[in-house]
Amino acid sequence: MTQHDLTQLHGIIPPVVTPLTPDFQVDEPALRRVLRHLLAGGVHGLFLLGSTSEVVFMDAPQRREVLRIAADEVAGHVPLLAGVIDPTTDRVIAHARDALAAGIDGLVVTAPFYTRTSQPEIVEHFRAVQAAVPLPILAYDIPVCVHVKLERDTIVTLRREGVITGLKDSSGDDTNFRLLARACADDLGFRLFTGSELMVDTALLVGAHGCVPGLGNVDPAGYVALYEAACREDWREARRIQERLIRLFGVALQGTPRTSPGASGVGGFKTAMKLLGLIPTHHMHRPNAPLDATETHRVQAILRAEGLLTPA
Amino acid sequence: MTQHDLTQLHGIIPPVVTPLTPDFQVDEPALRRVLRHLLAGGVHGLFLLGSTSEVVFMDAPQRREVLRIAADEVAGHVPLLAGVIDPTTDRVIAHARDALAAGIDGLVVTAPFYTRTSQPEIVEHFRAVQAAVPLPILAYDIPVCVHVKLERDTIVTLRREGVITGLKDSSGDDTNFRLLARACADDLGFRLFTGSELMVDTALLVGAHGCVPGLGNVDPAGYVALYEAACREDWREARRIQERLIRLFGVALQGTPRTSPGASGVGGFKTAMKLLGLIPTHHMHRPNAPLDATETHRVQAILRAEGLLTPA
Amino acid sequence: MTQHDLTQLHGIIPPVVTPLTPDFQVDEPALRRVLRHLLAGGVHGLFLLGSTSEVVFMDAPQRREVLRIAADEVAGHVPLLAGVIDPTTDRVIAHARDALAAGIDGLVVTAPFYTRTSQPEIVEHFRAVQAAVPLPILAYDIPVCVHVKLERDTIVTLRREGVITGLKDSSGDDTNFRLLARACADDLGFRLFTGSELMVDTALLVGAHGCVPGLGNVDPAGYVALYEAACREDWREARRIQERLIRLFGVALQGTPRTSPGASGVGGFKTAMKLLGLIPTHHMHRPNAPLDATETHRVQAILRAEGLLTPA
Amino acid sequence: MTQHDLTQLHGIIPPVVTPLTPDFQVDEPALRRVLRHLLAGGVHGLFLLGSTSEVVFMDAPQRREVLRIAADEVAGHVPLLAGVIDPTTDRVIAHARDALAAGIDGLVVTAPFYTRTSQPEIVEHFRAVQAAVPLPILAYDIPVCVHVKLERDTIVTLRREGVITGLKDSSGDDTNFRLLARACADDLGFRLFTGSELMVDTALLVGAHGCVPGLGNVDPAGYVALYEAACREDWREARRIQERLIRLFGVALQGTPRTSPGASGVGGFKTAMKLLGLIPTHHMHRPNAPLDATETHRVQAILRAEGLLTPA
Repeated sequence: MTQHDLTQLHGIIPPVVTPLTPDFQVDEPALRRVLRHLLAGGVHGLFLLGSTSEVVFMDAPQRREVLRIAADEVAGHVPLLAGVIDPTTDRVIAHARDALAAGIDGLVVTAPFYTRTSQPEIVEHFRAVQAAVPLPILAYDIPVCVHVKLERDTIVTLRREGVITGLKDSSGDDTNFRLLARACADDLGFRLFTGSELMVDTALLVGAHGCVPGLGNVDPAGYVALYEAACREDWREARRIQERLIRLFGVALQGTPRTSPGASGVGGFKTAMKLLGLIPTHHMHRPNAPLDATETHRVQAILRAEGLLTPA
Repeated sequence: MTQHDLTQLHGIIPPVVTPLTPDFQVDEPALRRVLRHLLAGGVHGLFLLGSTSEVVFMDAPQRREVLRIAADEVAGHVPLLAGVIDPTTDRVIAHARDALAAGIDGLVVTAPFYTRTSQPEIVEHFRAVQAAVPLPILAYDIPVCVHVKLERDTIVTLRREGVITGLKDSSGDDTNFRLLARACADDLGFRLFTGSELMVDTALLVGAHGCVPGLGNVDPAGYVALYEAACREDWREARRIQERLIRLFGVALQGTPRTSPGASGVGGFKTAMKLLGLIPTHHMHRPNAPLDATETHRVQAILRAEGLLTPA
Repeated sequence: MTQHDLTQLHGIIPPVVTPLTPDFQVDEPALRRVLRHLLAGGVHGLFLLGSTSEVVFMDAPQRREVLRIAADEVAGHVPLLAGVIDPTTDRVIAHARDALAAGIDGLVVTAPFYTRTSQPEIVEHFRAVQAAVPLPILAYDIPVCVHVKLERDTIVTLRREGVITGLKDSSGDDTNFRLLARACADDLGFRLFTGSELMVDTALLVGAHGCVPGLGNVDPAGYVALYEAACREDWREARRIQERLIRLFGVALQGTPRTSPGASGVGGFKTAMKLLGLIPTHHMHRPNAPLDATETHRVQAILRAEGLLTPA
Repeated sequence: MTQHDLTQLHGIIPPVVTPLTPDFQVDEPALRRVLRHLLAGGVHGLFLLGSTSEVVFMDAPQRREVLRIAADEVAGHVPLLAGVIDPTTDRVIAHARDALAAGIDGLVVTAPFYTRTSQPEIVEHFRAVQAAVPLPILAYDIPVCVHVKLERDTIVTLRREGVITGLKDSSGDDTNFRLLARACADDLGFRLFTGSELMVDTALLVGAHGCVPGLGNVDPAGYVALYEAACREDWREARRIQERLIRLFGVALQGTPRTSPGASGVGGFKTAMKLLGLIPTHHMHRPNAPLDATETHRVQAILRAEGLLTPA
């Protein structure tokens, strides 16, 4: 298997949706189809077991199943990252060992959650994971789920110590992201990714190395085209594509306010992917309810308007 | 084994601290000693695997070990509750099945966490747990960990449907707790517990049936005496005992600001219990650091001042 | 005029509602009627220009008008406090000078707002007000309006320096209030008041000297009876009265969710007072909308149920 | 006087700092010097009495003084906006009438504060100001001061009704700003300004018409050059200038953590302006403390590093 150098990680790295069978197990044929769809779209890497994958709904065997399938299907063509997301350090390490065994290239690690922690305790947490498992680590800043911010000083400390090799920023704090890019600009191997589907052009303008867009499950080629326009500094074209993808992001908003924003987002991606023929069902793990018929119809209309489905 | 009727649940039900061996496993002899200490103090029930137990640091086998030891040691003398705390519904149900198998009397269930949920999704979550496992459920409102409030309407709905039989309120919102007690006052079997160590007298005055005090690990008899004073409506005495226990609560505050409040609290309880000869070590799971020598000395001084240790 | 000693301040001190004429000026005859109603109810003091008075909607001449009328009507029978509420220090001092000139006994001062301040800057703010105007100061902790908490250390510092002589706590943090009562228990002249209408019995149990209940405008005698029951340590009776006043507090909840909670609260008090014949209109300053006919009908039903209006 | 068409408002519109005399009055000669400095820098408009001006520390006569001086000094060369910032509707209207009398071109209006309001009440507030005073209104979204967000639907409603003609967004929510720009893109006369000094290039890329940078008091020509680079779509140059201005923004950060961020920001601007010879003193209104000698020295070093002061 190709050994990927994560100090060169860049581009579009979608957080892969997990298709489910009718009895809520990992749907292997559908997952393989999704992975081939993403690779065909030209993505530069894949992020398994991220928030969009419903990772915290899955037990360890289900998570291992996802990693096994992905490693087999992708076969080293692009780097594979795995989220190792659970509340506390030793449980994260257990998942990290599974990722290592599955042949994953790098880990994505959040701060502890449920338990209340200080920034020094968060630093300890990352140090412990890094000491336990010989895989590169991207820090995952997602306060909307974890309810603590990875402060800029924490990231800078972890980078300086070599504990982390990059950051996935899903905090929505674009100013802080920019200041972090500045603080790390002297280290060419430290890689910054935004988790926002809606601000990719501006993130790339201020120094991001790429994006981890949930919506990339639906239109990977669109995000790759956006990334390529930014690489050649064609910001007018990058913005034009970004604006189209903002319209397409409407698929993630149709469930609210009936459902939570989280269920609306993943449910919208799954519904769009079902309409595109990628997955057979659009349901999610309990207690999240799938989009209903009216909402599904609105998703369909958006896919048609943006050229992903042929008009009725 | 005695079958306990949880519609009569009342009194002091400490969330049992989990003693650890030097290699971070459950210390069975020490846990048995803690359980005997609590029973000797006259507690009316025990809450295993609550936040104070470091439950989210433990994997399923460790959690089963705690329940096995407790069920064996307590042998039906008081009701046993078990926290089944993990981010999502099916993972909670898996823990709930373990609790059922271990002979536990009732479950304590939080809202989902990490994943963002709406109140209707929270209602679904509780319904699913109740449908899956035939054990009474207490809802656990702890927004400082879960980052969502169990709203009053949610509790009222779940009670009306018979999904839950009580509430442990660790929200710190005493006004809401009182209004909830009023809203449920017609249902004599619905049981309300406060999680606050510092407001037990006032919680009992406004209609609570009892308290789940972390500090009860250190001084169970003190909390039992407070409860008994409240039962006979001797509020002057209840307040006097509460004031002493507020002073004793100083053991939970010595770690800050060096550590997080969470680590300071559990770490302070463990340090006090070690000084009292109940447990051999005071360390916690990673990344939490134990109290240092200076902090330990201050804990010792508090224990002496409040009569739990003899003066030097 | 009697000189009142604010180190003895205690009991029920309602925040007086400001009746308005049809063109939104202070309605002097109605305000005098309200003041006589409150005195007849046995209140121990009056708090003019608090949040319930719509103080931040009034300019300086309107505020002076309220103070002039109150000082004249009350004529020293009970202590008068005046809120001096505006965003910054020198503007607060200007209002404080008006209060001094009007013969008010004491000031009620919040932290600065709109401008972001640190706790040391808040300490400076209180020091500056105290140095500028020779009147006793009660600190007013109302984070729901000011959006900063008067931290316990800040209160303790201001008390130790003699800058403040008491606190009105409208923070809803009952645990902190209790800890503050303990921290100040050695200073018999430092006076603590809760701003919560719903937790008066418990606040008095843990050491409060009294309450500043907005609902006291509607039923001053009810709150005085509650205070007196607490003074003789008849907590069963105190609770019984408190429970009735909680039901009566329903008048403050009928506007939501149509209006904001603030407009619903003051609007509900004004509607009840109009129905009781105390004031001729129930409107508030812009942009707050008064209760509509349906909401007014519900307020009427509550007044009847609690014996303040005779049945239809 | 030139009549400015605010549907064409664009470019760099600094929020003018208010220089103070030693006894805390408006320093007219210094203010005139600051205004000439800004005009010489090529700014496209001026925003008097914004948050950076310490507006909420000033009473009405001081505010009128600032407007009188600015109108006289600027003499119609650029559009003048005035903040009319106080807690409630009628007080805002009083300030708005003063601005109209002073010959100001447009108003900048926040949501009410201190009083808690709903979005419908906020809409009413803006409607009332617009109905009372015949001047164009820019909405001012600054939740860090006002503690409520002007929601996207609120802005869209106010725009559709013709109540507001633009927005100054100091919310830091860049994603929402972009979505708002999209929602208003069909209305060429609706003007969007960011209040962030640090994200001007990206704001212009996504559709902003300009910026209101506090740091523009220190280096107006720098911000004008950034704006001009963006206008010719030279994003590489725009970013280069922005990066320099981010370094220069260090002048606003030297007071913390000794002071609040607010005092550090305005205090840093004033200190830099004093070092540049624009104003004679750098103090602020109470309770804000000016930068101390060490902090001032650091500001000086930053000005030298960025070429605004000659090296020592």
